Amino acid sequence: MEILRTLTQRNDKRIVLFVLDGLGGLPREKGGKTELETADTPNLDALARESECGLHDPLGIGITPGSAPGHLSLFGYNPFDYMIGRGVVAAMGIAFPMKDGDVAVRMNFASKDESGSITDRRAGRIPTDKCAELCELLKDVSIEGVEVFVKPVKDYRAVVVFRGPELSDHVSDTDPQATGVKPLEPKGGDEDAEKTVRVVSEFLRQANEILKDQSPANTVLLRGFAELPYIPSMEDVFKLSPVALAVYPDYKGVSRLVGMDVVEGLSGFDDQGRALKDSWNRHDFFFVHHKYTDSKGEDGDFDGKVAEIERADAFLPTILDLEPDVLIVTGDHSTPAVLKSHSGHPVPFLINAAGIRPDETERFGERDCFRGAWGGVIQGSQLIRLAMCYSDKLAKFGA
Amino acid sequence: MEILRTLTQRNDKRIVLFVLDGLGGLPREKGGKTELETADTPNLDALARESECGLHDPLGIGITPGSAPGHLSLFGYNPFDYMIGRGVVAAMGIAFPMKDGDVAVRMNFASKDESGSITDRRAGRIPTDKCAELCELLKDVSIEGVEVFVKPVKDYRAVVVFRGPELSDHVSDTDPQATGVKPLEPKGGDEDAEKTVRVVSEFLRQANEILKDQSPANTVLLRGFAELPYIPSMEDVFKLSPVALAVYPDYKGVSRLVGMDVVEGLSGFDDQGRALKDSWNRHDFFFVHHKYTDSKGEDGDFDGKVAEIERADAFLPTILDLEPDVLIVTGDHSTPAVLKSHSGHPVPFLINAAGIRPDETERFGERDCFRGAWGGVIQGSQLIRLAMCYSDKLAKFGA
Repeated sequence: MEILRTLTQRNDKRIVLFVLDGLGGLPREKGGKTELETADTPNLDALARESECGLHDPLGIGITPGSAPGHLSLFGYNPFDYMIGRGVVAAMGIAFPMKDGDVAVRMNFASKDESGSITDRRAGRIPTDKCAELCELLKDVSIEGVEVFVKPVKDYRAVVVFRGPELSDHVSDTDPQATGVKPLEPKGGDEDAEKTVRVVSEFLRQANEILKDQSPANTVLLRGFAELPYIPSMEDVFKLSPVALAVYPDYKGVSRLVGMDVVEGLSGFDDQGRALKDSWNRHDFFFVHHKYTDSKGEDGDFDGKVAEIERADAFLPTILDLEPDVLIVTGDHSTPAVLKSHSGHPVPFLINAAGIRPDETERFGERDCFRGAWGGVIQGSQLIRLAMCYSDKLAKFGA
Repeated sequence: MEILRTLTQRNDKRIVLFVLDGLGGLPREKGGKTELETADTPNLDALARESECGLHDPLGIGITPGSAPGHLSLFGYNPFDYMIGRGVVAAMGIAFPMKDGDVAVRMNFASKDESGSITDRRAGRIPTDKCAELCELLKDVSIEGVEVFVKPVKDYRAVVVFRGPELSDHVSDTDPQATGVKPLEPKGGDEDAEKTVRVVSEFLRQANEILKDQSPANTVLLRGFAELPYIPSMEDVFKLSPVALAVYPDYKGVSRLVGMDVVEGLSGFDDQGRALKDSWNRHDFFFVHHKYTDSKGEDGDFDGKVAEIERADAFLPTILDLEPDVLIVTGDHSTPAVLKSHSGHPVPFLINAAGIRPDETERFGERDCFRGAWGGVIQGSQLIRLAMCYSDKLAKFGA
């Protein structure tokens, strides 16, 4: 990365990274087609015919990426060098101004019965308004020597940030990831974490007291204690001026961590298209994120994922009309509907630019991409290098 | 590997790694087919049509692997991080219980003439019984402050283990790798090795005295001085319970080094098939090793190697009948008959599992695999990650 930094050069060419979250899939039945192969995607197919196609591995062969490392890879970073905890992703997602030494943690409002066992890890999926109201109540938590911030995220999800001297993120989750059992006690991973464990335990005691008469959200679960990692910005490393056009908070969060501008208040493709046009003259790297391909995959909804891919295909002309110098279409990982989860399968991509060698890919699909120019599976974090190369933003190395 | 360890998870799915030693080959004549392409392999071809195929590089492009690093790579380790000397492979192969600080070395019984020049580096390939008898005689070697173990391996091959304080494996071979010349004097690679050099010289003096009236084995040659390396077990890193079903000692040796259980007393496919069934409910990783593809390659016997590949093909249904969740068929390196030696050419592989994207490979061969899903040549040590991923034994990385 140090060498890369010496080679990157600014110019007026524009790169668009269009991420269909969880794009890669698997056949529904033996001998069948994947979601992408099934989808009717005339725009992506036409683009594939003029592009270089292939598959990428976000984190290395066989490793299943979480959303944060999957995107970090697409942004050109080695995710193993920059560990991002869930709490930080959540805090960044709502633009909470974390400081060095802060410890952030993702909080779910949840339901428990009289014995203290968890009956619903999402408190009946309470709406965001209710979540905000409960977070307001939790402002009454008071712990000596520590500032506590409780902020709503979306639905039943919130984030807590602890600020004070000598805090540590080596604290274990209290979310048992199951119902019918009690929440776990927070435990410290080392001696340095003992103070934080006491702070967290006290927070939980007061929170449970404040919420005891609420229904259904009468308790909270914490997971992903995390401090802010140091990540050099895309501006610094790649000399790009990046902007994120994402709907969901977590993706805004990861974008902020690499120094992207984030456009707020977008709720779907229409907004994203307008925001893309609006920002076209102020940036040279555009991250456009479509969440629902992943959501449908996680739900095990094969046809729903196909439909979301088709919606993304219909949005493609909005990007093409702006004539980006480089366009990448890909996913941050695979989310096959048959697995109902992220998976470690390679992810199809296409990269289009003026000076390339279009391969013989006839349509955009996993098996078509196998045979493409980059069919041998490249590292996800190399994709941006390719984009930089194809937009003349990478200088020659050596004399 | 530290990160990998945090992601691996135990479950009841079974992985079979079927290694045809030295599988990769080369055409016999210009425009011709390789050994694998020539072989009639209906079972492998049918499996390839339902699998993901490709080529792997055991050690990195162009590097010719020895047997130990080739297998270490297939077991998921970076062989450059874990150097295994020949002496250790030999000692492990006969299940000699080496301790930290022991120095093991491979010993050949050999023949010399009256001038001391080597006339046969293998003493007319004396049988194992004779080898054992001579090793028994060498028990009379006595060196102050050092225990010496001399153990027969197979035919003219034996292993010597020196045990005592401050021994070193930085000692050069005495095997001149040629006839008509005298054995080499052992030399120390550094000051720490001086004591070991004196011990080895004294061992050779006494061994030559004991063997002087024997025929044809009237001397010994040593090569591959080696101490036990530290290698984390597959149980530790991958949370697999592995078992090795191999006929030859060296492959059992490498298997023991990564903590595999080793089934003893197997002499070929019939035994290996029975042992596979017997161990099916006690393990979840099964290493099945076929040696003779390599042996025939080393002999320059193209047709013989083709026949051994066909024998392996005929054995395949025995594995398939057990319905493994993941099956990998590959080699540990290439041994093209035209080269009569190991080579650095990529090695064809196929991986079969339920949740994959079968490519359009019609038959199992080098050039067919070029066009497969993994045709771009992946690192050999990544194969096991793929197997872990396809059997849901690798957790998601990151939030």
